Amino acid sequence: MLALMMDRPLTLPSILEHAARYHGEREVVSRSVEGPIHRYGYADALSRVKKMAKALLALGVKPGDRVATLAWSTHRHFELYFAVTGIGAVLHTINPRLHDDQIVWVARHAEDSVLFFDITFSEQVAQLAPRIASVKTLVAMTDRRHAPDGVLVYEDLIAAETDDFDWPELDERQASGLCYTSGTTGNPKGVLYGHRSTVLHALALALPDAFDLSARDVVLPCAQMYHANAWCTPYAAPLVGAKLVLPGRQLDGPAVCELIEKEEVSFLLGVPTIWVGVADHLDQTGGTLTSVRTIAIGGSAPTAALISRIEQRLGGQVRQIWGMTETSPLGVINTPLPAHGGETEGETLQRKLKQGRGLWGVELRILGEDGRELPRDGRSSGALQVRGPWVSSAYFKQDGAAAFTDDGWFDTGDIATIDAEGYLRLTDRAKDVIKSGGEWISTLDLEDAVCSHPAVAMAAAIGVPHPKWDERPLLLVTLRPGRTAEPEALKAHVAERVAKWWTPDEVRIVDELPLGPTGKVLKRELREKLAISATASQS
Amino acid sequence: MLALMMDRPLTLPSILEHAARYHGEREVVSRSVEGPIHRYGYADALSRVKKMAKALLALGVKPGDRVATLAWSTHRHFELYFAVTGIGAVLHTINPRLHDDQIVWVARHAEDSVLFFDITFSEQVAQLAPRIASVKTLVAMTDRRHAPDGVLVYEDLIAAETDDFDWPELDERQASGLCYTSGTTGNPKGVLYGHRSTVLHALALALPDAFDLSARDVVLPCAQMYHANAWCTPYAAPLVGAKLVLPGRQLDGPAVCELIEKEEVSFLLGVPTIWVGVADHLDQTGGTLTSVRTIAIGGSAPTAALISRIEQRLGGQVRQIWGMTETSPLGVINTPLPAHGGETEGETLQRKLKQGRGLWGVELRILGEDGRELPRDGRSSGALQVRGPWVSSAYFKQDGAAAFTDDGWFDTGDIATIDAEGYLRLTDRAKDVIKSGGEWISTLDLEDAVCSHPAVAMAAAIGVPHPKWDERPLLLVTLRPGRTAEPEALKAHVAERVAKWWTPDEVRIVDELPLGPTGKVLKRELREKLAISATASQS
Repeated sequence: MLALMMDRPLTLPSILEHAARYHGEREVVSRSVEGPIHRYGYADALSRVKKMAKALLALGVKPGDRVATLAWSTHRHFELYFAVTGIGAVLHTINPRLHDDQIVWVARHAEDSVLFFDITFSEQVAQLAPRIASVKTLVAMTDRRHAPDGVLVYEDLIAAETDDFDWPELDERQASGLCYTSGTTGNPKGVLYGHRSTVLHALALALPDAFDLSARDVVLPCAQMYHANAWCTPYAAPLVGAKLVLPGRQLDGPAVCELIEKEEVSFLLGVPTIWVGVADHLDQTGGTLTSVRTIAIGGSAPTAALISRIEQRLGGQVRQIWGMTETSPLGVINTPLPAHGGETEGETLQRKLKQGRGLWGVELRILGEDGRELPRDGRSSGALQVRGPWVSSAYFKQDGAAAFTDDGWFDTGDIATIDAEGYLRLTDRAKDVIKSGGEWISTLDLEDAVCSHPAVAMAAAIGVPHPKWDERPLLLVTLRPGRTAEPEALKAHVAERVAKWWTPDEVRIVDELPLGPTGKVLKRELREKLAISATASQS
Repeated sequence: MLALMMDRPLTLPSILEHAARYHGEREVVSRSVEGPIHRYGYADALSRVKKMAKALLALGVKPGDRVATLAWSTHRHFELYFAVTGIGAVLHTINPRLHDDQIVWVARHAEDSVLFFDITFSEQVAQLAPRIASVKTLVAMTDRRHAPDGVLVYEDLIAAETDDFDWPELDERQASGLCYTSGTTGNPKGVLYGHRSTVLHALALALPDAFDLSARDVVLPCAQMYHANAWCTPYAAPLVGAKLVLPGRQLDGPAVCELIEKEEVSFLLGVPTIWVGVADHLDQTGGTLTSVRTIAIGGSAPTAALISRIEQRLGGQVRQIWGMTETSPLGVINTPLPAHGGETEGETLQRKLKQGRGLWGVELRILGEDGRELPRDGRSSGALQVRGPWVSSAYFKQDGAAAFTDDGWFDTGDIATIDAEGYLRLTDRAKDVIKSGGEWISTLDLEDAVCSHPAVAMAAAIGVPHPKWDERPLLLVTLRPGRTAEPEALKAHVAERVAKWWTPDEVRIVDELPLGPTGKVLKRELREKLAISATASQS
């Protein structure tokens, strides 16, 4: 027997309609690519979104068509989040930090028909667009004055329309967004989000034990809008009526600090490297922030030293999350339980090093090498698999990817433990694992240990072949500006903090570590470089 | 094009599975019908729920079957919330305060096959059950020692089963609950909830700007579990891992106060009359509560005097809600906006008299007598209609009810205004409206005005026929214990607070006002009584 409740679909336009009606004056503030700060309320945003939706229809965009963006986090990108999806098309947010060949590859794979781009990328687009046969329309996300020749202009499209527009009826399972993971191996893989998955994820994200978002919040996502939809905050913020601050292209310390101070930001999110930059800037200026309540950190695991530094400098509490493009991205979040009320400062910090606990909606399991589920004892470490209504079921145009199990789980490629309280702790990426004498050594634990040394900025542990133990760890570190340290002293520092057989055979100080397009250390590249250097030294 | 996200249905068992896994020791505390306080964790609750699910299947309960309860808010009722719905059957929570004939009517209409009952109702059930042909199985919700003869015993059913049970695959649109509105006119109307509608409602309920529920909360619903599912808190609390306190049958001041104190309750909800009892008790004992953060009030509108009294006495903030059985029940909630940070105490109180603002998921509109939508100006008052994924689309086995409009809205039967900030303010029930000289007089405003007098306990304004003005208001009031007041003084008190033509022709002090099964004043009964009395005085 079916319920007798209204069959209202969960769709993205309903979010902005709600925000416009109940939080019409609440601002979306963005640092424009042209320079100045742009600000308007959700009611004005909706009006422009409706005009853009009509413009897209006039350009011939059909339901299911892929519309690409090569753009930073700005109000125009925000408008496309709703205009493109609201007419049933799919917003493909291309990561501009990809190599040109990869940009061409994903745009061809997605069969994008329209490409919206920020003027930062005008020359790049002029070169690349001819290589993407499917793209028939180019739109510069600016006004006539700033636009290059020979393309359509965003503000002209808006100006040509009125805002009398009713959204079409949408199936909530319809695709809404396409985001390729910047895979460190193989070709990029397309994650195809839907209206339903995004709305459910936005609801869960706003819950008190997740991001705790209300109409009183000011949200500044320091993950770009091409990076797992800026962790879905451009949808979650209007859903609850929070003020949304979009940082444009500038995620350096001074630019982010300026926005936090001027807009009284309460909620921040981003990868660890962003907060290093902010903390460095505050160190230099001696400035103090007063409005921040929470800094959500994900993308890669911060060290204990970095968590302490960020909390001291930014004045809020760090909440680590774990997630992936394939999980929309929220998988787990580190929110304290009532039982943690009596923690010492040290215990709090140790807890914050874990990635977090599952919220309703995301199921987790860890499997041993024999494929059997492992106990949640905080020690047994295995392959992390997840399941839930905002988790990918397949990659776009790629049948039978091994990451999707026959029994309906997504194999994340991460290695993790889960403890009795339900806290997930990543020990490795499966592909980065160091296996020594038949046992796993956690690269994250090694990196954490060396980063607790005051001279260390960043670290990366990788496995190097060893005739007896198969692999032994090598620890590469960069130093903080103006600091010095001897490799042997760093090795001794690590030795005090990890099991004896985990202690790396060598700690090597390097000038820099190669970072991928989302700020993660590219360990594959490190391994490749080292193989060359090893050969060189042998010759 | 459909999204490539997992097609996981939104179902109720997933909520308790999550709570058992991540909040296994978090308690469900209940005042049992037998007397003692019962407490256990969500993990133990799930184990018993699975045993009960197997017992129901063994009794022959099939998907879609209606399983009725005549029961208070206890842990066994909580278990049935999940066991019955989890096997795809429908939990019909009968309001025991209905007349016997109405209980028989709803059980027949629902075609209940099993009836679970608290021992409070043993004799009543023995009399009524033979009149309900569909009920084949009676189960006393107690142990063998307390059970009457000739029926199955809840604890025996549990003891006979093990907890190795996998939930069947459920369609999220499947019906899960049936709740009849205690209509003041006509036969009761059945609202048929579903898994999807309930999960979405529970998610929305827990948001920071709604009930703001987290794992750190202790929730005590003082609406019974047969009253719109205790406002969905038996589902929302485990979804977020909050401790749940169930008050059994006792909702008097001393019993509720004891639970708040001993269990450190942070979140309360219920109709205004409950809080009068609690405040009276605290007046007498001089006691102080320290754990309460929020008291959600709905069901009928509290007066300004009552809001102040409750906040002073209970120590938390009142958040008024408006909702109905047909809206699951959350429709709107009165949560402050950032703009209200600078309110004076008087302004805060005035704002709290409004029912609240819409959250994402519930759309509202008010229509004039010509069926056209009225402006949101805080003055235009019209028929309130709502729409959303947790709003009824029809009544059970009743086609074409007028409350459901052709264009997909539910006509609430309430008369309301909406102001520019989006705040809904009820002015009347449509059937209670007083129309005088072609204009509406708000009975709620009249009641609010007289209740601000320190001697007044409760009030009810009704329209009485008038040869010239069609209707004129009559205001009936009860006095607080030990207080006296003259009718003319009360009339003068009202006259100072409302428009001249709204001032009632008469204020009449009565010993009591007739209350319906959910604590609302039965105005229809008042009108009937007064008609008799009018006839009597004329004779």
